Amino acid sequence: MAPRKLQIAAAGLGRMGHRHALNFLNRTPRAELVAAFTPDPKEIAWGREHLEPFGVTLYTNYDEMISRPGLDAVVIGTATSVHAEEAIQAMQKNLHVLCEKPLSTSIEVCRQVVDEAKKRPHLKVMCGFSRRFDDSYRDAYSKVEKGLIGRPTILRSQTCDKHDPSGFFVEYAAWSGGVFVDMSVHDIDLTLMFFGETIKPKSISAHGCIAVQPGLAQHKDVDNAVGIVEFWGGQIAYYYCSRMMAHGQEDVTEVIGTEGKLSVNLNPQSSLVNYYSGAGITREVPAHYYGRFEMAFVQEANEFAAACLDNTELPMRLDNAVRAVEIGSWLQEALVTGKQIHFDESGKRSEKASL
Amino acid sequence: MAPRKLQIAAAGLGRMGHRHALNFLNRTPRAELVAAFTPDPKEIAWGREHLEPFGVTLYTNYDEMISRPGLDAVVIGTATSVHAEEAIQAMQKNLHVLCEKPLSTSIEVCRQVVDEAKKRPHLKVMCGFSRRFDDSYRDAYSKVEKGLIGRPTILRSQTCDKHDPSGFFVEYAAWSGGVFVDMSVHDIDLTLMFFGETIKPKSISAHGCIAVQPGLAQHKDVDNAVGIVEFWGGQIAYYYCSRMMAHGQEDVTEVIGTEGKLSVNLNPQSSLVNYYSGAGITREVPAHYYGRFEMAFVQEANEFAAACLDNTELPMRLDNAVRAVEIGSWLQEALVTGKQIHFDESGKRSEKASL
Amino acid sequence: MAPRKLQIAAAGLGRMGHRHALNFLNRTPRAELVAAFTPDPKEIAWGREHLEPFGVTLYTNYDEMISRPGLDAVVIGTATSVHAEEAIQAMQKNLHVLCEKPLSTSIEVCRQVVDEAKKRPHLKVMCGFSRRFDDSYRDAYSKVEKGLIGRPTILRSQTCDKHDPSGFFVEYAAWSGGVFVDMSVHDIDLTLMFFGETIKPKSISAHGCIAVQPGLAQHKDVDNAVGIVEFWGGQIAYYYCSRMMAHGQEDVTEVIGTEGKLSVNLNPQSSLVNYYSGAGITREVPAHYYGRFEMAFVQEANEFAAACLDNTELPMRLDNAVRAVEIGSWLQEALVTGKQIHFDESGKRSEKASL
Amino acid sequence: MAPRKLQIAAAGLGRMGHRHALNFLNRTPRAELVAAFTPDPKEIAWGREHLEPFGVTLYTNYDEMISRPGLDAVVIGTATSVHAEEAIQAMQKNLHVLCEKPLSTSIEVCRQVVDEAKKRPHLKVMCGFSRRFDDSYRDAYSKVEKGLIGRPTILRSQTCDKHDPSGFFVEYAAWSGGVFVDMSVHDIDLTLMFFGETIKPKSISAHGCIAVQPGLAQHKDVDNAVGIVEFWGGQIAYYYCSRMMAHGQEDVTEVIGTEGKLSVNLNPQSSLVNYYSGAGITREVPAHYYGRFEMAFVQEANEFAAACLDNTELPMRLDNAVRAVEIGSWLQEALVTGKQIHFDESGKRSEKASL
Repeated sequence: MAPRKLQIAAAGLGRMGHRHALNFLNRTPRAELVAAFTPDPKEIAWGREHLEPFGVTLYTNYDEMISRPGLDAVVIGTATSVHAEEAIQAMQKNLHVLCEKPLSTSIEVCRQVVDEAKKRPHLKVMCGFSRRFDDSYRDAYSKVEKGLIGRPTILRSQTCDKHDPSGFFVEYAAWSGGVFVDMSVHDIDLTLMFFGETIKPKSISAHGCIAVQPGLAQHKDVDNAVGIVEFWGGQIAYYYCSRMMAHGQEDVTEVIGTEGKLSVNLNPQSSLVNYYSGAGITREVPAHYYGRFEMAFVQEANEFAAACLDNTELPMRLDNAVRAVEIGSWLQEALVTGKQIHFDESGKRSEKASL
Repeated sequence: MAPRKLQIAAAGLGRMGHRHALNFLNRTPRAELVAAFTPDPKEIAWGREHLEPFGVTLYTNYDEMISRPGLDAVVIGTATSVHAEEAIQAMQKNLHVLCEKPLSTSIEVCRQVVDEAKKRPHLKVMCGFSRRFDDSYRDAYSKVEKGLIGRPTILRSQTCDKHDPSGFFVEYAAWSGGVFVDMSVHDIDLTLMFFGETIKPKSISAHGCIAVQPGLAQHKDVDNAVGIVEFWGGQIAYYYCSRMMAHGQEDVTEVIGTEGKLSVNLNPQSSLVNYYSGAGITREVPAHYYGRFEMAFVQEANEFAAACLDNTELPMRLDNAVRAVEIGSWLQEALVTGKQIHFDESGKRSEKASL
Repeated sequence: MAPRKLQIAAAGLGRMGHRHALNFLNRTPRAELVAAFTPDPKEIAWGREHLEPFGVTLYTNYDEMISRPGLDAVVIGTATSVHAEEAIQAMQKNLHVLCEKPLSTSIEVCRQVVDEAKKRPHLKVMCGFSRRFDDSYRDAYSKVEKGLIGRPTILRSQTCDKHDPSGFFVEYAAWSGGVFVDMSVHDIDLTLMFFGETIKPKSISAHGCIAVQPGLAQHKDVDNAVGIVEFWGGQIAYYYCSRMMAHGQEDVTEVIGTEGKLSVNLNPQSSLVNYYSGAGITREVPAHYYGRFEMAFVQEANEFAAACLDNTELPMRLDNAVRAVEIGSWLQEALVTGKQIHFDESGKRSEKASL
Repeated sequence: MAPRKLQIAAAGLGRMGHRHALNFLNRTPRAELVAAFTPDPKEIAWGREHLEPFGVTLYTNYDEMISRPGLDAVVIGTATSVHAEEAIQAMQKNLHVLCEKPLSTSIEVCRQVVDEAKKRPHLKVMCGFSRRFDDSYRDAYSKVEKGLIGRPTILRSQTCDKHDPSGFFVEYAAWSGGVFVDMSVHDIDLTLMFFGETIKPKSISAHGCIAVQPGLAQHKDVDNAVGIVEFWGGQIAYYYCSRMMAHGQEDVTEVIGTEGKLSVNLNPQSSLVNYYSGAGITREVPAHYYGRFEMAFVQEANEFAAACLDNTELPMRLDNAVRAVEIGSWLQEALVTGKQIHFDESGKRSEKASL
């Protein structure tokens, strides 16, 4: 008899949701996508064409879907505003949960998800930070583990999107939580990965500007921002996020240690081709983050399935996802208020800098 | 009802065979691996662990496997010496065939396979040259198609393996057909892809040496070889193949046109990580060709399945595989005899150079 | 009759001074090094061997040297603490002055030099920021001028030295003005170059840590620091300086505009050689800034000589040198106090952030 | 008293000649350019403006110039056809000689120069192969000397010029000796450098085509050629030369050893700038060989001056220059005749391949 496959349902078939659905349908051998939910008629239409013929039942009611007998898990790729609620409902139905990041742009709501998960330790609940599943970041991490760069001390990381002149990001800013929460949260998560999950911020600064999307001003957001987080213990991370790149997606990380340095994706490329012309030698760049991280999402799906089926530890802790959003929110606060934020060694906000 | 999946069987579970089997089992959504054959007890043991639990029936008799009712296709990854025979037998059972390259190291045997396939035009028969399915080569090709480099005129291509001091390649040389047939055949196939499938050799030169594997002398083979093929129409391809690389697999192609140039994998890398240390800045390189071309093999499996199910054209013609081996054999002949080989415009061997 | 050459004297024959002396002696065709001053017996000994035989008179008294009849100019490469005084004295003797950066670590003293120079507009007085003379920075600048990247909006720049375990930099920190004044001053100068010389800071943040040179604590300095300067007009520069690099000098700049981006030296290299070994593919990096910028110093000497002889405009304004040190001092202040600094639009310090 | 400077005269002020003249005038501290010769009125006019004002006497008669009292040396940068004659005449006047490559396109004439030089061992006579003076090639060579790549076994080297549609190269082909003598001679010289000067060809093949300069056919030359030289001792060099590059000068060398590999200029660049735009990431390339090798020519002038003044050994042997042209001529012969050329171990031509 063939080994049991994880019976999984997908919530949301939009930008990110439909990718999760397809990955569980086609590229996760140990899982079987049995159901998908979306309230959106366009997405349902897509599901009729791409999922239903392969045995996936479509639902327009989330609760109905997660009540389906035999279901083991749900992957949540709906709008951020419903992530937390759907995750909690799924746990209450005894389902494992893989939730797109972030759990919520509200720390409090994030914490509710974590609390719910703590009550059900037998469930696997993961908030997917795709870079953790990327071969190159893992290669870098294993080199740090081997001690190749000494003690990691400075981390520079940027998430830079291709400029989208459609106005999409202006609307999106109304509820995205701001650029540090929406974009840099990945870089912050990498900081927790490379500096260690117990690290505590000591002070935070941030500055931003609006260069190409004037409409962002109404949402107190920016299209370019730089922030610094100094940690107790003498480590510093600094971030750049931007939605202004002419050339494509450019997500770069450098980890600088006392005895060496690692860079990840310092020279982005969409293929191994260089084109030589009168203009010089040109290398193309992925247009979007999925072009850079597609295989990381596939890896994520497979590792989640394995952890659920084998009851093994997940590759990342749920409360990290909260930590990352929390630090992102502080950066956003520092950006908006124009004030540096300080923390004492216990982690409490303090008015004064600790020197 | 779910769409029908291609019922496929795998012949051979060795170095290449087991990868094909796993790709059809796990990473080819439209195919279902139902059977696998190998005469080798070690490979059977591997199959018991990795295939049987997933519903794959194991066979130690090839004929028995291909006689299995309901079977649609077979992927052949056995030793080169039996490729042709197994391919022909499969066609005679009305099965589609995906065969590892080369069909045979003998041109005559290759032609028998092609002849058999011509008799059964409803069957999809493909000899997999993995680079044709590689994103980067396809990106380069589409740029050529768009006219970005004018007329492709010079092609430089190399297949260079990491040095393997185990002695494996000395044994292997006994029946591999020689380095040009075994290694450069990929570069020759790329030549047909970029210069066009109807191109005809005008003259061929080759030189080689033994630098690290003295045992190759007994098989009249070498561990480093350089060859040039000049074509009627004024195009030149030149090849380097080697089994001596200290750093890993380095398969590079340059296509130089009258108005531009393309390079593929000029700067090999196994990940997007650079490591900075006292020695400088270091990038690792894949140790083996599968590290470079894994996703191309997956793509090949998927496109083969699609062509079989949808009865659409295969992405490459079977007789190309024969052409590539043929040119490889001539290069090997030029290498061994120390003589330049000439052809007239009709394709016939000629004693004298055409100037 | 051969054209007149600029008669120049060199003050200081130490680390930087001897390089200036040799550049004016050997690589500045329109100048003639006629004299050199140093109070240091070791440096005098070096001058006896390397300068005196070529017609250069050595002095141990600065005033005596600059009083030498026929002298046109002096290049000052002594300790920072005497730069300003020597520059002023030279101007008072009616000499053109090329002074190593910085004029002083004190803004007030810097201003005295500028004031003295303003009184003598016929004199060429330049504080050399070598990167302004570097081919690559000039190439980047000309691309910005051509509008290739739209409006420059974000500038990332780092000055990172190879780790020197000798303790030199701990002593040096006593009077260097701190890492932002000593190292980032180059990056700040580039900011003025790319964003325009009239740009005004709006707010400044900085964070630092001591990772490998504990002795720096006594001088309130650090070995790694990150700072952000936000400008009125919506531009942001952020800097990283470090004395901890394992691999060598790594001075990188990125200028990100509304329509494109430029990077300078993102992939440092000491030659065009790559070494392929079992470790991968390795590129060496210059060990020191002079390895990176040697030809920029030669260019600087030649352009200074030309401006003096032809009475043409210098390639950079003297008061920029003061602006760069000023911004560097503010970054250092923000680092040491742990407080963000704000400025109103007139350039005055303000207690509150302007949002 | 200042040390004596080498009194040198320049013959020829054309494309290459005027660069040598300026390098000895301005960038060779131990030499003094005192005279220059050219029969060409345009070049004389250039000399009046750029050399005469700096004390250089102009001559329209070569013999008169080399008879000038006090002269030590001459640098020959005239047309190739008079190199040898002028070199011999200079030696007969007891002058050191630095001659642009090649001495002649005729081996016999080359040998006359060598013979003349042998009679006057106190004279320094050098035929400048600029790449020997290039930092990167020297870096690669020192790594080979240290044993980093084991025994150098395969050398790939290319000299590729930017396409010049003016027709210049068609005229030039009338007397250039052909592409292998004119262009690949540099790559051959590098082969002697890396494989050792005593290495002997065993067999030679070459193929070429005309892709963009149809006029070359009348001179039996081509605009793209590939050649292989196999050496006794089991080493192979292969060359590509082209005048068809769209992007600029691309002179690349790889030296592949039994334990590692070195590449030189695999990724050509004209500066350290990368430009990011909608097209991707672009790096410009030098348009001409002088853009790549300018500093090597300066280094050559300085080392030649030093060897003359100090009576030390020159960095390269004169008869190498003959060897390089000789091998280039054989490659050209193999190209034109369409026949592989063989040599026995004593270096004699033989009809048959030695296997």
